[in-house]
Amino acid sequence: MFCWLSRLYLGFSTPTGRITHLIRSSLSRTLVLTSQRRIPEFSSFVARTNTCGELRSSHVGQEVTLCGWIQYRRQNIFLVLRDFHGLVQVVIPQEESTASVRKILCEAPVESVVQVSGTVISRPPGQENPKMPTGEIEIKVKTAELLNSCKKLPFEIKDFVKKTEALRLQYRYLDLRSFQMQYNLRLRSQMVMKMREYLCNLHGFVDIETPTLFKRTPGGAKEFVIPSREPGKFYCLPQSPQQFKQLLMVGGLDRYFQVARCYRDEGSRPDRQPEFTQIDIEMSFVDQTGIRSLIEGLLQYSWPIDKDPVVVPFPSLTFAEALASYGTDKPDTRFGMKIIDISDLFRNTEVGFLQDALSKPQGAVKAIRVSEGTKYLKRKDIDSIRKFAADHFNQEVLPVFPEANRNWNSPVAQSILEEQRSGLIRLMEIREDDVVLLTAGEHKKACSALGKLRLECADLLEARGLVLRDPALFSFLWVVDFPLFLPKEENPGELESAHHPFTAPHPSDLQLLYTEPEKVRSQHYDLVLNGSEIGGGSIRIHDAELQRYVLATLLKEDVNLLSHLLQALDFGAPPHGGIALGLDRLICLVTGAPSIRDVIAFPKSFRGHDLMSNAPDSLPPEELKPYHIQVSWPADSEAEKSSLNQPSHPES
Amino acid sequence: MFCWLSRLYLGFSTPTGRITHLIRSSLSRTLVLTSQRRIPEFSSFVARTNTCGELRSSHVGQEVTLCGWIQYRRQNIFLVLRDFHGLVQVVIPQEESTASVRKILCEAPVESVVQVSGTVISRPPGQENPKMPTGEIEIKVKTAELLNSCKKLPFEIKDFVKKTEALRLQYRYLDLRSFQMQYNLRLRSQMVMKMREYLCNLHGFVDIETPTLFKRTPGGAKEFVIPSREPGKFYCLPQSPQQFKQLLMVGGLDRYFQVARCYRDEGSRPDRQPEFTQIDIEMSFVDQTGIRSLIEGLLQYSWPIDKDPVVVPFPSLTFAEALASYGTDKPDTRFGMKIIDISDLFRNTEVGFLQDALSKPQGAVKAIRVSEGTKYLKRKDIDSIRKFAADHFNQEVLPVFPEANRNWNSPVAQSILEEQRSGLIRLMEIREDDVVLLTAGEHKKACSALGKLRLECADLLEARGLVLRDPALFSFLWVVDFPLFLPKEENPGELESAHHPFTAPHPSDLQLLYTEPEKVRSQHYDLVLNGSEIGGGSIRIHDAELQRYVLATLLKEDVNLLSHLLQALDFGAPPHGGIALGLDRLICLVTGAPSIRDVIAFPKSFRGHDLMSNAPDSLPPEELKPYHIQVSWPADSEAEKSSLNQPSHPES
Repeated sequence: MFCWLSRLYLGFSTPTGRITHLIRSSLSRTLVLTSQRRIPEFSSFVARTNTCGELRSSHVGQEVTLCGWIQYRRQNIFLVLRDFHGLVQVVIPQEESTASVRKILCEAPVESVVQVSGTVISRPPGQENPKMPTGEIEIKVKTAELLNSCKKLPFEIKDFVKKTEALRLQYRYLDLRSFQMQYNLRLRSQMVMKMREYLCNLHGFVDIETPTLFKRTPGGAKEFVIPSREPGKFYCLPQSPQQFKQLLMVGGLDRYFQVARCYRDEGSRPDRQPEFTQIDIEMSFVDQTGIRSLIEGLLQYSWPIDKDPVVVPFPSLTFAEALASYGTDKPDTRFGMKIIDISDLFRNTEVGFLQDALSKPQGAVKAIRVSEGTKYLKRKDIDSIRKFAADHFNQEVLPVFPEANRNWNSPVAQSILEEQRSGLIRLMEIREDDVVLLTAGEHKKACSALGKLRLECADLLEARGLVLRDPALFSFLWVVDFPLFLPKEENPGELESAHHPFTAPHPSDLQLLYTEPEKVRSQHYDLVLNGSEIGGGSIRIHDAELQRYVLATLLKEDVNLLSHLLQALDFGAPPHGGIALGLDRLICLVTGAPSIRDVIAFPKSFRGHDLMSNAPDSLPPEELKPYHIQVSWPADSEAEKSSLNQPSHPES
Repeated sequence: MFCWLSRLYLGFSTPTGRITHLIRSSLSRTLVLTSQRRIPEFSSFVARTNTCGELRSSHVGQEVTLCGWIQYRRQNIFLVLRDFHGLVQVVIPQEESTASVRKILCEAPVESVVQVSGTVISRPPGQENPKMPTGEIEIKVKTAELLNSCKKLPFEIKDFVKKTEALRLQYRYLDLRSFQMQYNLRLRSQMVMKMREYLCNLHGFVDIETPTLFKRTPGGAKEFVIPSREPGKFYCLPQSPQQFKQLLMVGGLDRYFQVARCYRDEGSRPDRQPEFTQIDIEMSFVDQTGIRSLIEGLLQYSWPIDKDPVVVPFPSLTFAEALASYGTDKPDTRFGMKIIDISDLFRNTEVGFLQDALSKPQGAVKAIRVSEGTKYLKRKDIDSIRKFAADHFNQEVLPVFPEANRNWNSPVAQSILEEQRSGLIRLMEIREDDVVLLTAGEHKKACSALGKLRLECADLLEARGLVLRDPALFSFLWVVDFPLFLPKEENPGELESAHHPFTAPHPSDLQLLYTEPEKVRSQHYDLVLNGSEIGGGSIRIHDAELQRYVLATLLKEDVNLLSHLLQALDFGAPPHGGIALGLDRLICLVTGAPSIRDVIAFPKSFRGHDLMSNAPDSLPPEELKPYHIQVSWPADSEAEKSSLNQPSHPES
C-alpha cells in the first residue's frame, strides 16, 4: 500500500501522475533507480532497525526491531503495524511461553504504539498479499513492548473514512497520520529541499532571513498589528519581504532567496490563510528573461519525479492577449475553448443589441465554441450559463447552434445564423455538435464574462464525463505586460499600482509616464499554473527620482513612510528584479489537494481559527497592560453575545 | 582580497581559522579542491559573464562583462570595481575614440554601479599585486554603462572605517556591502543549507512549517500578542514550536525539523533579539543518546570547511559536575582553571570563616588555581576580583600564593598556607608562579562565584597577552541530568519547571516524582559551545497521566489551556524527544562576530527598534479599530513626552 515513500525519494522513469496509481505500484519498479538519489536513513539514531514499510523478501531471516501504531488485528493471530513508511504484518505468537508478548499484542487497542522485535519470515505459500508492498513477508515476534496505549478515538485513522474538515482540524494530530497528509507534507518538504539545492548550490543564491516584526507599509491595510512595550507604537507583520529584499540588493547581496513566512489579515476568505509561505527571490543585474529562465529551471529541477517532467520554456501571453483569449489574467491553458472576436462578422448586422454594442467605444461581439456541446450540455445547463452571465456580469449570452432548428425559441439566434452562418462557421471552426456562446458589449467586460463561462462550461462538461483538464497535466504560462497603474475603484480619476509601487515601467513606455501614465505597461510578470496564479514579480525601479515621481506625483503616497527605501536607491542601487512563488498554492496543485489546508500541517479554519488549540483566545486585561492597549468592546448586542465568556468588558 | 568566497564554497584541506588569513590566502591554494563541491554558477541568468572576484590569469584573452560598484579610482587611469565576490582592476581607456566610456568611468562617484565589457589582460610585468586574488590581471574596457549613480554616502564602504553601530543599523543596506557582513551572511546560508542536506537528504527528516499565529501558552509572559478581528481575542507569537512539534510526533511525522522563527518579548536586553531563529528538531522512538549523536553528526557535517573539523562525540558533564567544576551550567571548556573542592583540607581549621562555612549544610571550601597568575595579574587585578565577588555574590575571596611572603597583608591567607600548605599544593598542583583564589560557603553559591571569577581571570589574563581561549578552538560540551524542577523564585515552597513542563523525568528518578519531586533529575540536555548555550532539548513526557500529574498536581497549572496536548498524548503518542539549536548564537560563535546583530541581515537595536525603517511606529486610531483595541496612554509625563507626536490620547 505505502510504497509511495520510496517513489517520493527515488522517483520513477515512467511517471503515473496519480496518487492512487502510486499506492499500487509494485516493488520491482521502485528499485530500478536506486542509484539516482540516495535513500535517507530513516532508522538512524533510534530504537528500530527498520521501518515497517521497507521490509521485503530480501530481508527474510533478518532480526528486526520495529516501532509503530497498531493498524488492525485479525482474530488475535495477526496484527498489522503501521509507521509513516507503510504497513507490515506481525504474527502474534501463540505458544504458552510467549504469554506476555501475546497479552500485549492482543490487548492493546488499535492505534496504540508498540515496539516489536523478531525475525522477518516469508509468508506461507498462498498467503502473500500482492497489493501490499510488504505482502511477501511477515514478522515472527520474539519480544514486544507497549510504548503507549490509545484511548477511544474520535475517528478511525483510515483514508477512506470520511470526516468533516472541522473534525479533522480539531484532531489535526490524528488526521496527520493519514496516508494523504503524510504524502502531502513529505512531498512539500522534498520539493522545497530541491528548490534550495537549485538556488543555493547550483546558482549561488544566499538564503537570508528578513524580519517579520516590521512597520506598517503605506496602504498595508491587511497587515496584522503587534503592540510594543512603548505606548502607541506598533510593529506590523509584513505581507511580504518586498522592502527587505530590495534593500538586500542595494546591500550587494546580489542573489537572495528565502522561504518566507508572510501574513495577510483578510478576515474570512475561503482558501486563504492568515499566514502563508512564499519562495521569495531577488536578483541584481537581471531582466525579465533572466527571472523567467531561473524560475523555469527551478520548477524543472524541483518537480516531483513521479509527475510528468516540466517542459521549458513556458509559453507566455501578454495581459491583453490573455484577456482577449481567455477573459482573465490567469488562464487555464489545459484546454482550448478560447474567446474569439467575431465583431467583423456583425459590422452590418441589423440585430439591435449587437448593433448597439458595436456602436460604443471598445464594443465587440465575442464568442466561445463549446466542442461537442450539444452532446454534453442539456438545455438547463445552457439556461444556467445564461443566468450566470446575467447575474454576475449583466451580460446577455446567446447560445448559437450550427443547425438553425436547434436555436430554441431564439429568433435573434436564428437571424444571426441566417445572416452570418458561413462566416461564423469558418471563423470559429464550428462542427456539427458544437455550441457557440455569443455575447456583445465592452471588450473587457465581454471577455471577462466569457472567460468565466468558459470555466463554467468546463465544469459542466467534466461533470458529464468528458475529461477536459487532464489531472496529470501541468500547464504553465507566463503573463506579462500588465498595466502599471489602474484607476482607483473608489475614485477612478486617481491611479493606484496594479501590483505595487516598486514595479518598473516597461522601457518602451517610459515617456508615457509623464504624459499618459494610465497607458504605461509594467515589467511585472505572473506565473500561472492550470488557471491559478502561483507566482508574480517584476523588475523594480532602481532610480530614486523615478521612484519618488511614481510615489509622490502619480500615486500621491506619503513618501516619508518609505524614506529609507528612497534613500537606499540614492546610494548606488543596482538594477534588480525578483519574484515570489506561492508555495502553499503550488504544492496544492502538485499534490492535487482540494484545499491549501491539505498541504499545511496546522492550518487555520475559514474564520482564521486554530480549531485544535482554540486560537485566537481571550486574554486577561493585565496581560495587555505591558502593551498599553485595552479592548474596545463593541456596543451592539451581537458582539456582546460573542463575548459572553469574557471576564468583564468595561465599555460597551 | 576577496577569495574567501571560493573558500566558503570549496573549502581547504588546511584550515586557518581566522578571517584575516582567509582574505590573504593565495589563488593556488583555493583551486586545489575544486572537485569536492561544485562552485555555484554566480553569473547565470544575468547580464554579466563573470564576477569581479573570480578573474585570474587563466582568463586572459577572454571577453567579459562585469557589473559592480566603483570601489576607488586612481588618477583617472585605473578604477577598481567591486562585487560580492571581490575586486578587479579596470583600465580606463585614454584614447580620443573612447571619450564616452572614459567620461562615465572618470565621472561616476565612488559606489556608483557600472557595467563594463572588455578583455581580460595580464598586468604589465612588475605591476602585479600579489595581495589581490585578481592581482595578475586587469580589464581593458571597450564599453561602459552607468547603471546608477551614487550620492554622497554617510560613511565609506570599507571594513577598516569605524562606524557606530547605530549608524550601521540606520544604513544597514550600506553596511551589508562590507566584506565582513557578506562573509557572515553567506556562511550562515551555507551552514544552514548543509544542515538541511544532513537532516533531509541523509536522515529522512521532514521540513515542516508550523504556525506563528498561535495562542498564549501557560506562563508565556514573554509572548507578543496580536489582536484579531474578534473583539477581545488575541493570537500570540510563540517562543518556540514546542507544542506543534510534539503534536507532529503524535501525528506520525516521526522526524521533524524546521528552521523556525521564534519570538520573545524581553524588552531591552543586550544581545537578544525579539525575533530569532532556531534549528528545531523532534524525533519519535529516540533517547538522549540518539539525539546527541544526531546533533554531533549535524554539526560535523555542516561545519565550515575553513574551520577545524568538529571532533565527535562531544564530552558531557552532569549539571552537578558542571556546577562543581565550573560554577555554571554552561562551562567554557576551552581552558582549565577548574574549581577544586578543598574542604577536606580544612576540616580542622581554626580560621573562623572557614570553620563557619564548613559547619553549615552544603558548606564547602573551594578554590581555583590561576596558572602563572603572579606573572600576569597585578595586585589591583586581584583586588578588583575580590571586590567583584563581594559585590555580586557577597563572597569573601582570598588570594593564596605558594610563597607565603606574597600573601599581602592577609594574616588569614598566611595562616591557611602554614597549616595546609603541602595538602593544597598537592591537591591543586600548585606551581611557583600560580595564584589560588579561595572561597568558602554554601556549595552552589561558592561554585557560582568562583565560576564567574574564573571567566574574569581569563579576561584579565588575555588582556595581559596570554592566550587562554584559542579563537580557532571550538569546544563543545553536553550538560545533562538537570533538575526537573526548581523552587519558584517568588515562592520557594512551590515548584516550577527548570526548563518546560513537557520535559520527561529521568527514568531512575520516576518514583521520586511522587515523594520528593524537587530531587528528580530530568532528561533535559544542553549543548554548550565555548561557554555559550547553543542548544537545549529533552526527551518529552509521552504519557498523558504523567503529564497531567506534572501540570496539575506539581506545577498547579491550568490544564485546560493545554487540553489539546493532553488529549493528543491519550491517542497513541509515541515516545519522543528533540532539541533546538540557537542559530543566531551558533553562527555568531562560528564567525567570531562580536554580536548576534552581526549575523542577522536586519537586526533590531537594543531597545527592539529597527533603526532603518523606524519600527515600531505610531498608528492612527482608525487602523486599530478593526482590531477592537485602543491605546491606554500612561498618565505620567515621561510617557506623555514620548508620545508628543501622537494625534490625540483620550485617556491620561
